[in-house]
Amino acid sequence: MASETSRIEAFSDGVFAIAITLLILEIKIPPVTQAPLSKQLLQQWPSYFAYLLSFLFIGIMWINHHRLFTHIRRADNGLLFLNLLLLLGVCAVPFPTAVLAVHLHAPGARTAAALYNGTYVGIAVFFTLLWQYAVSRNLLDRPTLESAAISRQYMLGPIAYLICLGMVWVSVGVSLALNVALAVYFAIPAQRVTKVPDLHS
Amino acid sequence: MASETSRIEAFSDGVFAIAITLLILEIKIPPVTQAPLSKQLLQQWPSYFAYLLSFLFIGIMWINHHRLFTHIRRADNGLLFLNLLLLLGVCAVPFPTAVLAVHLHAPGARTAAALYNGTYVGIAVFFTLLWQYAVSRNLLDRPTLESAAISRQYMLGPIAYLICLGMVWVSVGVSLALNVALAVYFAIPAQRVTKVPDLHS
Amino acid sequence: MASETSRIEAFSDGVFAIAITLLILEIKIPPVTQAPLSKQLLQQWPSYFAYLLSFLFIGIMWINHHRLFTHIRRADNGLLFLNLLLLLGVCAVPFPTAVLAVHLHAPGARTAAALYNGTYVGIAVFFTLLWQYAVSRNLLDRPTLESAAISRQYMLGPIAYLICLGMVWVSVGVSLALNVALAVYFAIPAQRVTKVPDLHS
Amino acid sequence: MASETSRIEAFSDGVFAIAITLLILEIKIPPVTQAPLSKQLLQQWPSYFAYLLSFLFIGIMWINHHRLFTHIRRADNGLLFLNLLLLLGVCAVPFPTAVLAVHLHAPGARTAAALYNGTYVGIAVFFTLLWQYAVSRNLLDRPTLESAAISRQYMLGPIAYLICLGMVWVSVGVSLALNVALAVYFAIPAQRVTKVPDLHS
Repeated sequence: MASETSRIEAFSDGVFAIAITLLILEIKIPPVTQAPLSKQLLQQWPSYFAYLLSFLFIGIMWINHHRLFTHIRRADNGLLFLNLLLLLGVCAVPFPTAVLAVHLHAPGARTAAALYNGTYVGIAVFFTLLWQYAVSRNLLDRPTLESAAISRQYMLGPIAYLICLGMVWVSVGVSLALNVALAVYFAIPAQRVTKVPDLHS
Repeated sequence: MASETSRIEAFSDGVFAIAITLLILEIKIPPVTQAPLSKQLLQQWPSYFAYLLSFLFIGIMWINHHRLFTHIRRADNGLLFLNLLLLLGVCAVPFPTAVLAVHLHAPGARTAAALYNGTYVGIAVFFTLLWQYAVSRNLLDRPTLESAAISRQYMLGPIAYLICLGMVWVSVGVSLALNVALAVYFAIPAQRVTKVPDLHS
Repeated sequence: MASETSRIEAFSDGVFAIAITLLILEIKIPPVTQAPLSKQLLQQWPSYFAYLLSFLFIGIMWINHHRLFTHIRRADNGLLFLNLLLLLGVCAVPFPTAVLAVHLHAPGARTAAALYNGTYVGIAVFFTLLWQYAVSRNLLDRPTLESAAISRQYMLGPIAYLICLGMVWVSVGVSLALNVALAVYFAIPAQRVTKVPDLHS
Repeated sequence: MASETSRIEAFSDGVFAIAITLLILEIKIPPVTQAPLSKQLLQQWPSYFAYLLSFLFIGIMWINHHRLFTHIRRADNGLLFLNLLLLLGVCAVPFPTAVLAVHLHAPGARTAAALYNGTYVGIAVFFTLLWQYAVSRNLLDRPTLESAAISRQYMLGPIAYLICLGMVWVSVGVSLALNVALAVYFAIPAQRVTKVPDLHS
């Protein structure tokens, strides 16, 4: 059954790697026009910003997925399905990213940012569902201080991203800044605790 | 020869992972126009529906492929070729998906749905051929209750998808709904029997 | 050093899997127009033909690559570079495929077919170079009847594809038919000999 | 912890394989027009040049990444993050490649070449950061003559690519030629030294 999670991990890694690499296809190549190329390239900054944010986000999700599966040792049909749901969210990221890039300077900025942050709320919910399911079905290696820390952090995730989504109606800029901050938070944490189980491994 | 199937599985996993991730590229990014972005996004619902259905379908095909190869232990040239034929079907999915998304609200809806369901008939046939070939050439690990259950289920697959295709001329909506139901059926079944060989593993 | 070839194989498998899956993106989605969808879909048959031929070709190249690396046990910088050259040919396939699909019914059919077959000449040359290099640098497991058969077959490859390319100026149709025949030949052969080393493994 | 770097390598391999394969999508398919296809294909030579250069570059980066990770034995969060930064550079390559292909014959050639070489400066810096971090955090297997040679070579990389970038304002052609030379230099070197640790492995 250990081989079961290893093939899930390999498939998931493939999906993460493709989704993160496809993001670049959404950046338009400026055509040859009267306007200088440098100016055209600079005007596309919302595309670069959206690209960087989504790249960071998918990269950090990969690290997190990786972390979860160092604890998950067994798989069943429910876990396979919930992991598929999570990958659905990951695969969808290039779409809201491109919508945000095109509409960040247009009247649809709020809608685009809501779609973008909404996607991340969905992914946060799927991460929490996957983890809670693994805990409740006893699919973990054994309970550790770190898995307890992950449980705490993952209860927080959907709420934090919901707040981030709500902020869109206050200020699109603040909402996106908060999004960056959340990505960084989920990159680092539960780490202080990590050192403890490391002693036993 | 065990390593033979492990490289087939790795290659197939790669193809499944890429096909499932490429689906998102078929969803159009609404341009900046007079119409509000939210309205434009909502009008694209056939794209989201087609995306979700194909994502679910490829995901479940991956789970099924995975399941087959827990039983298949040896590979020969025939198996390599039949697996390639199956992957041909999987790789083709983004095309009928995009055709369905564009034409679901147009006069070509019936043709688009027939192309979509026809692709799935083909894939179901290839799955059955692959499995029957493995059984008849004695490439399986050893006969189990589960492999017998798979054989029964896989004889049914092409017929069920043919009915689903025929339904297109009755009602496009009913045909697509039946498609969803079939995807779910192939996600779960042969499972009651699965528990038996699990006792021996 | 065995791990060296395993990572080359994994990277190559990834490239083969992506190239074979990207092919579908070159098939156009017919827009909603006055013409019935079914007619539009049928008119695109050169796209389907080019798609199927290239899919078959890349699939068979993967099987062949796989076969070579069951014999190659060690890697050096030269092998890495020659493998990269081979992958360059594989990655390029979607371009001549799409050119052939667009121009098969147009005045540029001959040029398109020459580009298509020319790509395959290049790939056949790279395959032969890779294999000859591995033989001459003593990177093989040990000489077998099968490796001798591969050497014979691979000396033939570039010549056969050159003839196929030359046929373009006689008849585009015959040249493409010959191409299919060659793909099938490279899928099966050296196999009668394969059975001998199998007895020792 | 060794498994930690093996999953980083697998994920990175996936990203390298996808980025190198996506490059082909940036080459335009000439439409059916009055102009002969052969002429249209030849006029696209900047696309082929940019394609070949970037393919070579990503291929050599993969070889280098591979080489680094034969020395790196442990991973921590910092290494994960720096590796993600490096992959960001790799994933971005298709964009400057396409910009260069479109603008090499246009007034924006200098800007396009600067963007192209600038991307490579960034990647060279990220490679050096990754390696220096691994050295300073003691994540290497054990210090060898080769790892010392890599350190020397990687201090040079960003400077060499910066000179290459500066050359853009002297001559776009010379700058791109220098780029090819640098790619070849990073493909071969530190190799004389490689033979020494090989004796112990």
